[in-house]
Amino acid sequence: VTAQGEIAQTGSRARKSSAGYDLTRLYVGSEGTLGVITELTLKLYPLPEAVSAAVCFFPSIDAAVQTTIQIIQMGVPIARCELLDANTVRAVNLHDRLGLRESAMLLMEFHGSPASVAEQAATVQEIAREFGGEDFDWATTPEARSKLWTARHHAYLSALQTRPGCRCVTTDTCVPISRLAESINASVQEVEEAGIPYFIVGHVGDGNFHLGYLIDPARPAERETAERLSHQMVARALALEGTCTGEHGIGLHKQGFLVEEAGEAAVALMRTLKRALDPHDIMNPGKIFRI
Amino acid sequence: VTAQGEIAQTGSRARKSSAGYDLTRLYVGSEGTLGVITELTLKLYPLPEAVSAAVCFFPSIDAAVQTTIQIIQMGVPIARCELLDANTVRAVNLHDRLGLRESAMLLMEFHGSPASVAEQAATVQEIAREFGGEDFDWATTPEARSKLWTARHHAYLSALQTRPGCRCVTTDTCVPISRLAESINASVQEVEEAGIPYFIVGHVGDGNFHLGYLIDPARPAERETAERLSHQMVARALALEGTCTGEHGIGLHKQGFLVEEAGEAAVALMRTLKRALDPHDIMNPGKIFRI
Repeated sequence: VTAQGEIAQTGSRARKSSAGYDLTRLYVGSEGTLGVITELTLKLYPLPEAVSAAVCFFPSIDAAVQTTIQIIQMGVPIARCELLDANTVRAVNLHDRLGLRESAMLLMEFHGSPASVAEQAATVQEIAREFGGEDFDWATTPEARSKLWTARHHAYLSALQTRPGCRCVTTDTCVPISRLAESINASVQEVEEAGIPYFIVGHVGDGNFHLGYLIDPARPAERETAERLSHQMVARALALEGTCTGEHGIGLHKQGFLVEEAGEAAVALMRTLKRALDPHDIMNPGKIFRI
Repeated sequence: VTAQGEIAQTGSRARKSSAGYDLTRLYVGSEGTLGVITELTLKLYPLPEAVSAAVCFFPSIDAAVQTTIQIIQMGVPIARCELLDANTVRAVNLHDRLGLRESAMLLMEFHGSPASVAEQAATVQEIAREFGGEDFDWATTPEARSKLWTARHHAYLSALQTRPGCRCVTTDTCVPISRLAESINASVQEVEEAGIPYFIVGHVGDGNFHLGYLIDPARPAERETAERLSHQMVARALALEGTCTGEHGIGLHKQGFLVEEAGEAAVALMRTLKRALDPHDIMNPGKIFRI
């Protein structure tokens, strides 16, 4: 629904189209600033014949990330590859009594035919071993998989509970997969030096991770430090040709980062689009950039 | 480069981003009407460990298309799946002396590990047999694959030579994969009844195909018939929730189809974008829609 109250349908059910401008992708990610999406058509995929989930523990977060880089660069079609650092595992253990070993871990899922799933897993296990990864713990039933994913799904709330009353300053950088280790290692070093409690979860197969700074809201210096580290992390991601936000969007907090990342010319184009489609600035005003 | 001569960079090297509006996808497919793309960054994939190409001949075009639908709906990760109808095969045989059997055929490519490629091929062979498909002819060396793809790459020019002096009215509809057989069968029936020479090639794994009407430019009635059939084909594609153009774009010829497909409200949005980004209408004026 446009700012003028018109209803427009964008896209079709065809797998591809080149009929005019790609309005769908213009509106997706526009954070409600161009109009309101009231109806969605989703693309469905058949359930894979076989699904396996595995957990692998590593001696360090760097080892887990190096493994991920190799997996992706070899073209293994891994369906999910999530990183939890030791702090996160400790937090979910406390929260859900999962009894997981408290070191960096990758949570992986393989989809395909039974033979292809077995082959992917064998390849990944071999790569993991090269970086000191342990033998995989397997989950092949839906129930066992759900239990494993609990660790991932409860990570944020569990981490918050490790420091009662804290607030979380969350980051969302995404970098080319080849630069992910540099990006994470430098961020870990900085936060360790600053002495602020933190945790890391990452959709590392995409080069995307979230480092959460757990700050005490009664101590303004902690917030300042967290914001400074967050800015340093974004500057590094941009230097590595990545983005300040892989999936969370710009909103209010990252407006400065957007200009650093996209440049004035691109942000000017975005402003032009906003003014043209929403001349009275009634759609989620003030978000993404100031007009 | 914008209509104002500014240089904007859109996107990053990260696999995903949600930093502001998706300018990349707004410009891709805009047919030069919003600006000029002067530099591209491409995403590279590792070469697959194994690649196999196979040809399979079918008793009818319907059998080839039904096979394709099953392959896609089963989720077989086939890398390429191209259809050539008997007319096309006849044309490339004449042009390149390929000696192929002159019936509908699928040209398929499988990528992956050796085991996964073999498994995909076995699954697809089984599906093809259910619809009367013959045993696969295989090409595993790069040279043998190139020879097979010659048939596909020379299809258009070979078909033109089957009717000296002819012009081709080409179509480009794309429909949901489940509706592809209806879409192709009805189009074949109409053109056979009209008695105009034609050929069909299709990226059928996407639900996209091209039927070329080979008309004699000295006979205006043939062009009229071809345009009428082309319009009927688009109307049918839209009724099947598809698109009038899978990949060729709107240009001048399909402007009426765009309105039928996207609706007045969506085309009005596109016009607003065009006016905002190119107020003096200097970027490829007159294409996609009249402003």
